[in-house]
Amino acid sequence: MIIVLKKQISEMQKESIRSFLVEKGYTVKEIVGQEETVFGAVGQSTLDIREVELLEGVANVVPISKPYKLASRELKKEDTIVTVGKVKIGGNRIAIIAGPCAVESREQIMSIAASVREAGAVILRGGAFKPRTSPYAFQGLGEEGLKYLKEAGETYGMPVTTEIVNPSDAPMMTKYIDMFQIGARNMQNFELLKAVGKTGMPVLLKRGLCATIEEWLMAAEYLMASGTDQIVLCERGIRTYERATRNTLDVSAIPVVQKMTHLPVIGDPSHATGLRDMVSPMSLALIASGASGLIVEVHNNPEKAFSDGPQSLYPSQFEKLMRDLHSLSAVVGKSLE
Amino acid sequence: MIIVLKKQISEMQKESIRSFLVEKGYTVKEIVGQEETVFGAVGQSTLDIREVELLEGVANVVPISKPYKLASRELKKEDTIVTVGKVKIGGNRIAIIAGPCAVESREQIMSIAASVREAGAVILRGGAFKPRTSPYAFQGLGEEGLKYLKEAGETYGMPVTTEIVNPSDAPMMTKYIDMFQIGARNMQNFELLKAVGKTGMPVLLKRGLCATIEEWLMAAEYLMASGTDQIVLCERGIRTYERATRNTLDVSAIPVVQKMTHLPVIGDPSHATGLRDMVSPMSLALIASGASGLIVEVHNNPEKAFSDGPQSLYPSQFEKLMRDLHSLSAVVGKSLE
Amino acid sequence: MIIVLKKQISEMQKESIRSFLVEKGYTVKEIVGQEETVFGAVGQSTLDIREVELLEGVANVVPISKPYKLASRELKKEDTIVTVGKVKIGGNRIAIIAGPCAVESREQIMSIAASVREAGAVILRGGAFKPRTSPYAFQGLGEEGLKYLKEAGETYGMPVTTEIVNPSDAPMMTKYIDMFQIGARNMQNFELLKAVGKTGMPVLLKRGLCATIEEWLMAAEYLMASGTDQIVLCERGIRTYERATRNTLDVSAIPVVQKMTHLPVIGDPSHATGLRDMVSPMSLALIASGASGLIVEVHNNPEKAFSDGPQSLYPSQFEKLMRDLHSLSAVVGKSLE
Amino acid sequence: MIIVLKKQISEMQKESIRSFLVEKGYTVKEIVGQEETVFGAVGQSTLDIREVELLEGVANVVPISKPYKLASRELKKEDTIVTVGKVKIGGNRIAIIAGPCAVESREQIMSIAASVREAGAVILRGGAFKPRTSPYAFQGLGEEGLKYLKEAGETYGMPVTTEIVNPSDAPMMTKYIDMFQIGARNMQNFELLKAVGKTGMPVLLKRGLCATIEEWLMAAEYLMASGTDQIVLCERGIRTYERATRNTLDVSAIPVVQKMTHLPVIGDPSHATGLRDMVSPMSLALIASGASGLIVEVHNNPEKAFSDGPQSLYPSQFEKLMRDLHSLSAVVGKSLE
Repeated sequence: MIIVLKKQISEMQKESIRSFLVEKGYTVKEIVGQEETVFGAVGQSTLDIREVELLEGVANVVPISKPYKLASRELKKEDTIVTVGKVKIGGNRIAIIAGPCAVESREQIMSIAASVREAGAVILRGGAFKPRTSPYAFQGLGEEGLKYLKEAGETYGMPVTTEIVNPSDAPMMTKYIDMFQIGARNMQNFELLKAVGKTGMPVLLKRGLCATIEEWLMAAEYLMASGTDQIVLCERGIRTYERATRNTLDVSAIPVVQKMTHLPVIGDPSHATGLRDMVSPMSLALIASGASGLIVEVHNNPEKAFSDGPQSLYPSQFEKLMRDLHSLSAVVGKSLE
Repeated sequence: MIIVLKKQISEMQKESIRSFLVEKGYTVKEIVGQEETVFGAVGQSTLDIREVELLEGVANVVPISKPYKLASRELKKEDTIVTVGKVKIGGNRIAIIAGPCAVESREQIMSIAASVREAGAVILRGGAFKPRTSPYAFQGLGEEGLKYLKEAGETYGMPVTTEIVNPSDAPMMTKYIDMFQIGARNMQNFELLKAVGKTGMPVLLKRGLCATIEEWLMAAEYLMASGTDQIVLCERGIRTYERATRNTLDVSAIPVVQKMTHLPVIGDPSHATGLRDMVSPMSLALIASGASGLIVEVHNNPEKAFSDGPQSLYPSQFEKLMRDLHSLSAVVGKSLE
Repeated sequence: MIIVLKKQISEMQKESIRSFLVEKGYTVKEIVGQEETVFGAVGQSTLDIREVELLEGVANVVPISKPYKLASRELKKEDTIVTVGKVKIGGNRIAIIAGPCAVESREQIMSIAASVREAGAVILRGGAFKPRTSPYAFQGLGEEGLKYLKEAGETYGMPVTTEIVNPSDAPMMTKYIDMFQIGARNMQNFELLKAVGKTGMPVLLKRGLCATIEEWLMAAEYLMASGTDQIVLCERGIRTYERATRNTLDVSAIPVVQKMTHLPVIGDPSHATGLRDMVSPMSLALIASGASGLIVEVHNNPEKAFSDGPQSLYPSQFEKLMRDLHSLSAVVGKSLE
Repeated sequence: MIIVLKKQISEMQKESIRSFLVEKGYTVKEIVGQEETVFGAVGQSTLDIREVELLEGVANVVPISKPYKLASRELKKEDTIVTVGKVKIGGNRIAIIAGPCAVESREQIMSIAASVREAGAVILRGGAFKPRTSPYAFQGLGEEGLKYLKEAGETYGMPVTTEIVNPSDAPMMTKYIDMFQIGARNMQNFELLKAVGKTGMPVLLKRGLCATIEEWLMAAEYLMASGTDQIVLCERGIRTYERATRNTLDVSAIPVVQKMTHLPVIGDPSHATGLRDMVSPMSLALIASGASGLIVEVHNNPEKAFSDGPQSLYPSQFEKLMRDLHSLSAVVGKSLE
C-alpha cells in the first residue's frame, strides 16, 4: 500500500502513521519527492485501507496488492483448460454452448438438442430454476427439467449445464448436470458460490450486471477457495446509461480479463442484447476480440417460448452463425471445439 | 402497450400485427397522426414486449402498465406504517436504527446498544452473517451473534435487525430478531426474498448497487407476494462512474420513491459513503430530502472493528448527529420516533 | 405522445387534460383498458412532455416521435455513402483512416503518411488543435500543422482529416482539409456543430463520452440542419463504472445505430482502449460487428510522441492489423476500400 | 508515481525500467515486500503513465500527484470567497441565485427579478444564449437578452449571471454581466474556458454530465491558468443508469469537493431533477450537505416559458423555499447572504 502524505504534515503525525503501520505488520519506506512525500508499506496484512486514510496527515492511500490470488495470472502463467465431460474450454479452442433459455418439456429439449448438436454446439444449456424479475412469471420446471436435460444431453452426446439459484440444491443437481451456471444476479451471492465450489464441479460464472472485473475475479476466487478450479468466466453485458440496448456488452473485457487471469472467458450475446438480430453480430465481435467460446440461446419455436423467446435464435440462424464462426476462427488463429 | 408503426408499413403487415395482439387478448385502437401511426393495446396479458418489437412493420413498443402492483401507490394511496416491535416507521416519524456493522462479542454489542439507545436510536442493528467480497475476510459470528444481539435489544428496550444471507436460515432467525435485512447484493436473490417473505416479518430491503427504482419495487413485490407487507425500503448508494466516493448516494430517489409506492423509505449513509466524516452531512441530506429514517453504523471502538470500522461513527459523533437531526426534523415537519 | 392517466382521475381532470392537448394542436384518442386508461395524442407540436406530466391526473407521459428527422432511417431508407476526396465510406466498403494523434513536424507526418498508405489506409488523420484535459499539456501546432498534413496527404494520395475545436477556425480550415472531426468532448458544442455544418464539408462525428445514441443522432441532425449531409458517425467508447479499461467500447452500438440512421458508422479503437495491445482485438471486434471502417492511431516512434503515444500502433503492428482486416472482411461480406 | 513490478520480472527488466524513469527526471526508490516489489518514482515530469505501463515487467502504475494545482486545497488552505458585485459566495454564507431559464422579454425578466429579489435571492440568472439539444428549438434572445438582464439586475440591485456558449462572445458579454456561467455540456470546451478565464471575471462552472470530480477541478484549473481565480463550482446532476430522475444529483460530491479544493461549491436542483416538485426537497438536501448556495429556476408563468417551464418554481413556491432555507441555515451553522 502507498500512503501519500499531506504537504503540511508534522513530524509527529508522520511518526504516528509509521508506528501504526509497523504495528499492523508492515515494512515502511519513505520516498521524498519535490511535490509530495509518500510511504510505501508492504506486508501480508489485510488491513482495510480506509483505516489508514483516516489517520491525521494522510492525503490518499493506494492499494497495491490484488485481492484475488488463486485466480491471478501471476500465480499461474499458463491458460487453464476447463474440462466439461469430454469437452475442453480454453487455449486455442472455441467452444459453443447452446440451447433454450428454459427446459419447457421433454419434447422441446430433445428437439433443440438434436438441432444444436447437428449445427456444431458441444455443450447443451437449458434452465430448470429461473430467477425472474417478476414473482408472477414462469419459474422453471425444477428437478423434472433437470431430468429431461440430462436425457437430452446423453442422447445427443453433449455434457449439460444449467443455472443454480438456491445453495441447498447443489448436491441434488450434481446428479444431473456437468457444469453449474452462476447467473449475473447471483455473482455476489456468496452462500451460493460456497455451496457450488464445494461440489468441485465445473462452473460457468457470469459477470454481474454492475460488477467490476476485479469483483468478478473475486467471485471466481470464492469458488476456488471453496474447492473447484474448473471455472469459465462469462461476459454478458453490463449496465450503463445507454438504453437503446438492453445491456452494454463489454467486449473489451475479453482481452483485459485474459491478462489478469488464467481462467478461460466466453461471452453470452443473447442476454447482453436481448434481441435475436443482435446475437449474430455480437457473437462475431466476441470471438474476434479473443473469447474462448459463446453461450447462445436457441429455440425451435421462439414465438411459443416460456421465457426470452425474442432473444432466441431459430435453428437455421444458429446454423448460419456456426458457419460464420468457422470462417472467423481461422482469422483469429483458433479452431472450433 | 403502445406500438409505434413504421412509416412504410403495408396494410397486410398492419393487419397481421393487429391479429397477433387480439389473439393474445388485447383490445387494439389505432391512432393516425401526421408523423406517425400507433396502435394502443390494452389488456391483462403478460406478453414480453420484445415479441411485438420483432413483428414486421413495428418501429417501437412502449410498455404502459407498471410491473409491480401490491407495492404501488396507485393500489394503496395512504402511507404504510411499518411496525417493528413497538417502533413505527413511516408517516411523520423519523426512526433511527443504529449499531455496529457486525456483532463481535457479547460485551461489544451490549456496550454499543447502551450508547445508541442513550443517544436516541430506536432499533438496534448488528450483523451476524456477513457477505464479504473476499473469501478470506471475517464472515460473522452466526447464530451466536444473534443471541447476543437479542439480549442487547431486550436489555435496552430496542427491537433488533440483522442481515440474512441464506434462505435456509430464515426460520431459525425469526427466534432472535424483529426485522430482517436484505442486503444490496441480495436484492435480486429471489430465493432469499421468497424465504423471508414467507415468515411474514418486517423486512428492511436495501436497494441493489445497480438496481433501478423499478427493480427495487419489484423486489418489494416479491416479498409482498410471498407473505409480508411490512417492508421498509433503504437507499444505500448506487454505482456510477464517479470513484471519489465509494458509491453515489441517490438522494433524489427518496422523493421519487415516495410518489411511486406507499412503503416507507429510509437511507443508509454509512455504506453509501464508506467514510465516517461523510456520514453526518449525508444523514442530514437524506432527512432534508424527506426520508423516514436512517440506518447508521456506530462502534464503541472503530479502530478495532472487525469490519467497516472506517465508516462507523464514534458514540460522541452519533450523539451530535442525533441533536442535529432533532433540529432538522422541525424544518421538514416531522418528529423523531 | 401517450398519456397514461391515474386510476383515480376525475372526469373534470380528464377533460382538462384533453382541452390542454387540443389547444396545443394535438388530436387526442382515448383508449380504455382493464388496468389503465391512456390518451394517445398526435400532432406536429414540439411541446415539452414534462408540461403534460405536471397536469393533475397524469401518471406518466411517453414520447413517440423521434426528435431527429433528417438523420433517421425512416426518412431515407438506403445507406448514405459519404465521399471524402476520392474515398467512399459506407455500404459494403471498409475504410481505414490512420495517422498520428498529433502532427508534430513535417518530417513526422510525411513519414507516417508513407507507411500507413503503404499498409492500406485510405485517409490520413493528424491533430493540429488538441483539446487536452490539462492546461499545461501540448496543445498542437495549429495552422502550421494543417499545412504539413495537407502536404503529406497530397504527396501520398490520401484525403486528410483533423479535429476542429473553435467555431471561428472553420473557414480557415476548409483550405487544408477534406473532412472535419468533431471530438467526443465537443459532440454537444452546438456552436461548433453549426459552424462546421455551414461549410457543407464531410464530418466525422465522434460519440460523446456519455452521450446516448439518440443524442448522438441529434448532434448529426444539427450538422444536417446547418448544411452538410456528409456525416460519418464514430463510436469511441463510453464512460461506465468499469475502470479496468479507459472507456467501455460500445460495440453493440454499431448494429443498433445502423437500424436507426442511414449514415455510416465506424469505430475508434485507439481512444476507446487507450492501450496499444487492445487496439487490434477491438479493431477486429468492431469490423465483425458490422462497422464501415476504423480510425486508428499509428506513430513511427510512439515512445517520443507528444500525446497518446501509448495507444499508437507501431507501423508493423498496423500492417499486421490490415492483413487481418483483409481476411475478416470476407467473413462479413465486405471489402477494404 | 508507483510502479508495481511483475513477480517474474528479471533483473535486466528491472534495471531497464529504472533507467527509463531516471532519464525522464525521476528519483526512484525500490520497496521489496513479501508479495510484491514496487518502485516509487518522484519528480516533476509530466510523463503519460501509460508509457510506463507498457514497459516489460510492469504490472501496474499508480499516479500519485494530483493533476490540478491552483485549485487544490493543498495549495491554499483557507476557503476562497468569490465576490460577484456586492455579493460574497463561500465560507459561512448561503447565496441564492434565481431567475428564469431564459430571458424572454424585458417585461418577463423585470417581473421575475422583482419577485425573486423580494423573496431573498441575491443574484439574478437568465439565459440569452441557450444550448439546446434540438436545432429546431428556441435558441435565446442573444445580446438583446443581455441588455434586459442587465437592466433588471440594476433596477432590483442584483448582480447578474448568464451562460456563454461561444468563445468569441466573451468580450461583448463582459459589458452586461457580473458572472459567466459555463454549462455542463461545455465543461470541457477548453477554448471556451480559456476565453472566459482571460476576462478575469467570476465564473460559475457547472459539472459536466459525466465528469469526474477530478475532471471538474481540471476545468477550474484551466480557468485559473487563464486568468481568473473567482470560480464557483456547481453540482447539477450526473448521468447514471437510473432513468426515474432526469439526472442523479450527486449530493455527496458537495463534502468531497470541499476537501479537495478551496473554491466554493453550490448546487443546481432545477437541472438536476427537471421537475418542479423535486426542486424543494433537493434544495434542502444540498444545503444540509454543506453547499454554499443554490441556483434555482423561477418563472412568473411557467406554463408559457419558452424553455424548461416544468422545472421552474412559481414565485410563491420560491418564497416558501426561502423560508425553509432560512430555518435550515441555522441547523448547519450558516446564514443566508
